[in-house]
Amino acid sequence: MSAARPKRTATSPAADDLPPLSGAELRLVREIGSRWADAMEDRQAWGGALPVDPSAISFPGRVRPTGWGRVVEVEALRDGEPTVLEPADPELAEVSRWGRLLRRLLIGRPLLSSALVEERMRKLVALPVVGADLMASVAYGPEALLGVLALGGSVALGLAPLLAAALVALMVTVGLSYRQTVRAYPSGAGSYTVARENLGVLPGLTAAAGLVGDYVLNVAVSISTGVAAVTSALPPLRGSGLWLGAAMFAILLVGNLRGVRQSGAAFAWPTYVFLAAMALLIGAGLWHAAGRGMAPVPASPVRALEPLGVLLVLRAFASGATAMTGIEAVSNSVPAFRPPEWRNGRTTLTWMVVLLVLTFSGVMLTLHLEGIAPRPDESLLSQLAHHAFGNGPLYGYVQAATLLMLLFGANTSYHGLPRLLFTLARDHHAPRAFLRLGDRLAFNNGVVALTATSFAVYLGFRGNLQALIPLFAVGVFLAFTLSQLGMVVHWWRQRGAGWRRSLALNAMGALMSSLVLVTAAAGKFLEGAWLLVIAIPLLIWLATRIRAHYDRVAEAVRLRPPVPGQPELTVQPRAASHVTPAAAHEEVEQSPGEIRHLAVVPVSRLDLANLRALAYACSLGMPVLAVHISPQQEQADRFEYEWGEWGDHVPLAIVLAPYRALLAPLVNYLIELHRQAPDVTLTIVLPELVVRRAWHRLLHANVAARLRRALRPLRGVVVTSVPFHLPA
Amino acid sequence: MSAARPKRTATSPAADDLPPLSGAELRLVREIGSRWADAMEDRQAWGGALPVDPSAISFPGRVRPTGWGRVVEVEALRDGEPTVLEPADPELAEVSRWGRLLRRLLIGRPLLSSALVEERMRKLVALPVVGADLMASVAYGPEALLGVLALGGSVALGLAPLLAAALVALMVTVGLSYRQTVRAYPSGAGSYTVARENLGVLPGLTAAAGLVGDYVLNVAVSISTGVAAVTSALPPLRGSGLWLGAAMFAILLVGNLRGVRQSGAAFAWPTYVFLAAMALLIGAGLWHAAGRGMAPVPASPVRALEPLGVLLVLRAFASGATAMTGIEAVSNSVPAFRPPEWRNGRTTLTWMVVLLVLTFSGVMLTLHLEGIAPRPDESLLSQLAHHAFGNGPLYGYVQAATLLMLLFGANTSYHGLPRLLFTLARDHHAPRAFLRLGDRLAFNNGVVALTATSFAVYLGFRGNLQALIPLFAVGVFLAFTLSQLGMVVHWWRQRGAGWRRSLALNAMGALMSSLVLVTAAAGKFLEGAWLLVIAIPLLIWLATRIRAHYDRVAEAVRLRPPVPGQPELTVQPRAASHVTPAAAHEEVEQSPGEIRHLAVVPVSRLDLANLRALAYACSLGMPVLAVHISPQQEQADRFEYEWGEWGDHVPLAIVLAPYRALLAPLVNYLIELHRQAPDVTLTIVLPELVVRRAWHRLLHANVAARLRRALRPLRGVVVTSVPFHLPA
Repeated sequence: MSAARPKRTATSPAADDLPPLSGAELRLVREIGSRWADAMEDRQAWGGALPVDPSAISFPGRVRPTGWGRVVEVEALRDGEPTVLEPADPELAEVSRWGRLLRRLLIGRPLLSSALVEERMRKLVALPVVGADLMASVAYGPEALLGVLALGGSVALGLAPLLAAALVALMVTVGLSYRQTVRAYPSGAGSYTVARENLGVLPGLTAAAGLVGDYVLNVAVSISTGVAAVTSALPPLRGSGLWLGAAMFAILLVGNLRGVRQSGAAFAWPTYVFLAAMALLIGAGLWHAAGRGMAPVPASPVRALEPLGVLLVLRAFASGATAMTGIEAVSNSVPAFRPPEWRNGRTTLTWMVVLLVLTFSGVMLTLHLEGIAPRPDESLLSQLAHHAFGNGPLYGYVQAATLLMLLFGANTSYHGLPRLLFTLARDHHAPRAFLRLGDRLAFNNGVVALTATSFAVYLGFRGNLQALIPLFAVGVFLAFTLSQLGMVVHWWRQRGAGWRRSLALNAMGALMSSLVLVTAAAGKFLEGAWLLVIAIPLLIWLATRIRAHYDRVAEAVRLRPPVPGQPELTVQPRAASHVTPAAAHEEVEQSPGEIRHLAVVPVSRLDLANLRALAYACSLGMPVLAVHISPQQEQADRFEYEWGEWGDHVPLAIVLAPYRALLAPLVNYLIELHRQAPDVTLTIVLPELVVRRAWHRLLHANVAARLRRALRPLRGVVVTSVPFHLPA
Repeated sequence: MSAARPKRTATSPAADDLPPLSGAELRLVREIGSRWADAMEDRQAWGGALPVDPSAISFPGRVRPTGWGRVVEVEALRDGEPTVLEPADPELAEVSRWGRLLRRLLIGRPLLSSALVEERMRKLVALPVVGADLMASVAYGPEALLGVLALGGSVALGLAPLLAAALVALMVTVGLSYRQTVRAYPSGAGSYTVARENLGVLPGLTAAAGLVGDYVLNVAVSISTGVAAVTSALPPLRGSGLWLGAAMFAILLVGNLRGVRQSGAAFAWPTYVFLAAMALLIGAGLWHAAGRGMAPVPASPVRALEPLGVLLVLRAFASGATAMTGIEAVSNSVPAFRPPEWRNGRTTLTWMVVLLVLTFSGVMLTLHLEGIAPRPDESLLSQLAHHAFGNGPLYGYVQAATLLMLLFGANTSYHGLPRLLFTLARDHHAPRAFLRLGDRLAFNNGVVALTATSFAVYLGFRGNLQALIPLFAVGVFLAFTLSQLGMVVHWWRQRGAGWRRSLALNAMGALMSSLVLVTAAAGKFLEGAWLLVIAIPLLIWLATRIRAHYDRVAEAVRLRPPVPGQPELTVQPRAASHVTPAAAHEEVEQSPGEIRHLAVVPVSRLDLANLRALAYACSLGMPVLAVHISPQQEQADRFEYEWGEWGDHVPLAIVLAPYRALLAPLVNYLIELHRQAPDVTLTIVLPELVVRRAWHRLLHANVAARLRRALRPLRGVVVTSVPFHLPA
């Protein structure tokens, strides 16, 4: 007896939210079912005939979203005319027509789950999309490197070409290392999955925590650099940097609530535009330099603020290493490539690393040739563009392309973090809410959480790039290191063809990554990196707590073999502090025949709302007891008289509440009833007044809601609300 | 079948919350009951025998509150041992033991309702208690008067004795006027009651709004003056006036949450202490003056800031009139006097006016004789005390007594406003919550509301006395005027013995009060009085809206004559916008036999929580339909298979939700079911996971709560929660 179904099926990633029953559970279900068979035979006075025909309700073959609401149309075939119902989602029912219009304009029409599988990418599209984060890193990597070196003065800045060469070596090493990951995990695996599978749960969670830091700071760093790109070009805006940043956060938030649909072709062009800008910039720089025989312009002297030591150089190296953040993106998204996925992914990765090395070393070289040093009020790329093109349209083009690239780079986090949270949630390490896809197949909760955290960090550091970079490096290289260590273990376990070479490459990558990690964490510990040293263990602890809770829940709702006889009579005394005596009753599986009933109806007055609740309770065919709470004797007597006039159809208990409280006496009375017969299921039937407008709620005592909350901790107490709708 | 009752009865003012049934309603109840008789005979398969014995549950003869919780003890007589249960009030269950300890220390033990009637007062106790507000007015009245006059310079200040004489005349007039009210309303009646009974609802609400302004500003003005008393004595505190004020608000708040118990004897002595201080001050001043032949000390010249005109004099007069605020107190509290109440009350009122006239004119005279003019940094009383006693202990005594008097004067509002709100709530013009007495017989909601509003006004005006005074005068004299106009109408209607004299006195009082009102409102309109001109109509409008809502509710729940046949089949088509089609079904009185049932159980998975809900639904003996929402076909098929393995005991409907929403498809499905058979009551049985810790709620989808909210607007849909308790 199931409704008609749409013809197309889709692979929703949320499919694992409700895992199928295991073999043992299936056997238990059969056993339990056989016990029910007898019970249902006795009970089925209604002969299995329903007063409705569920099969007449069906969805049309192709489900269409309505224009304004997140609503699934339901078609009643009864009268042959399809009917579009008003949205019944409470979140939507409460917003006005204008609110829904705004929502639809900002966020777009809902998407079918099947839209997900259509998002396979050609290499030429995948390269800019998956590589956006990596390419954007070129905009802040040199800035981060030279920003630290400049502290050592002109002499230190002279070391820049050397450090750039070392960074290129690091890029190649890590790139080769990740090529192994792509081959080994054709279904895609981020640092969390690789570390978890090969190193264990705790390293996995550590990698995940590092990744969270990575994603959060990627947004903050990209926006900070984006703001610099704007203020370099438009000096009058310099004072309102934080406002500019806030605006960029808002753009990312709204754009991402709209979802992944735009991520394909629409995300491809900014990367190419940026690459073209970089090519122009480097080309112009080299052309100028060639004009003067490749002789570097002597840089204006920079005063040293710190002594030039090994530590400074290492810190500069670690900061500069942020130029390669995003290099791991391919390994996460292998399944998004067209088949053969892993080979296409690996080729794309190689191309990405080549492009990275070319642009990064090109920019570093041109900066060196033009003798440009970091300045607080203008970004390096802007200075370079000014040198190359003056103040003309080409300068504007470079700045605009950089800003765009950074925004799209930041956007990578909006795909990465929700997907990481989804994976964590699937492993029960994150709240289940992250499993839920929004209207537009985006993980809305993750999108909002990322924006909030990232914006907080951005504000906390006043949008200062140099302060954000060390935190960024710690998060990124923590994840890199664990991922590559995981790969080392992977190859060691597999020992397939060519495992030694792969292992060696991954070990090299792990070693270099860990060096950067240690340098970044130690070198800037006091200036902000301590934040991650606190945040990462906190995240790990939280993830394990969450997992423990879900495990206990799964154990609690697990089916158990039915106990012969009447298991619900075994009252277990408990010494729990706030657990009331009634709570001692165990919640076991019961077949319908085993349940003994008593309905209790709190009645305040003989009016329509109360009588409807009373009639409902009486129609259930179970014993009914009415309870009246009275502040004083004369009221009690009066009510008893009225009750008698009505006919005294139901036993009535009157409780005097001389302290004027209503809930406490009632709850205590119910507890006492329950104690008298712990094997009886109490059904509390409450008349619930439903108001039309929110402010009307202030005018009513809302006893039903408060009583429901008060009774919630009690076992074997079922609460039933019989609504009575008040006029507006 | 009622529980044992305590022997003492008490007259709780909340008794009118549940009015008795009228004669027509009683007839209806009998008619409805006779219809039930047949239905119950058919249904009473359980033969009227309950599985519990409610008569075995009783309260002990004398109910004692437990030490720490707002809890009524319930004694189970079954086992002969009384058992003290843990507090079951949700508000208390959620606070820790320490929280409860703190609450008890601050607020005290709960009081029995019967404690209210014990609060009858002798005249010597009543005078200072009821007169506290009036006496406290002496502390700010002269300040308010001279503060305005000083704007006109030394010449204007010379008019002070003249104005003081006029004020004394006003005091006597209004006092005589209120003597009539006490006689006419021996059961006590504030301005609201008098105006409402004699002039109509709107004037009544206007008077009530004026009184609200009066009460709110009385607190703000008293505390502002109290702060001046402190800072005059302790100049170093001058900078932290607002903090001092906040501390005084806190004292009043906590003190009043403790309730009325302390209001008798404990509230008497501060007034006597203050009167003694005033007597000392005036005596010393006269003694000094006598020493120099009663010649006034020439005041130091004061520069005029405004031209001396009629308007300035009138404004000064209106401001000075605040010296008589609180004169109406006796008319509110006649029943608190010992019998004969009205005569004792009237005598007390006369004494109060005499004392007021003596202290006010004494203070004004002494100020004149000593040549004291207002100074921004020291209050007039403090200057007077300095002149009389230097800086010695007597000076300290005067200041402390003034502060104490002001605090007790402010406290009057804490009795007046909650009582006014209670009266308004009884007339359905204020939220029902104000009917509720707290643990300590105080109207807690009113206490908190008053403190919040008053503190906001105090902060809004930066605690500036001269800015607060005109608002105060407007509120007070609005209520005075309407109250006395009401009395005029009262005497005109009654025309009993001596009505002409009473009418003349009240008319005189009304005339003078209205003059002060107009002067205060017009003279300071731009400087703050406009606030009341907005707030008062707003309050009146709100009160009428609230009354309209309660009237509609009463009409909605009113019993109606039963319609023969099956009234629930008449579906009324409605063009309402967001009301779903299912909502068109009318909510009429039904006898149990007329209700047709269908239980619907949303099942997500065959686990313990879901099976318990299913078993509960099946045990109700009504037709049951299970509904499973599935995001995709393969999951749906899997669930159908598991369902079959279990035995397919209940019809199952599967709804595919390709937009991943859970609630919207389910709600739409239920609406469709309801549309198929609008006369069937749908009982939605929800398994509800109950978490132990608040943060665990974030880890669960809380479908039950969200679904309950979504289903609430639907008529004929009953929601039943079957709880399943998760481990901590």
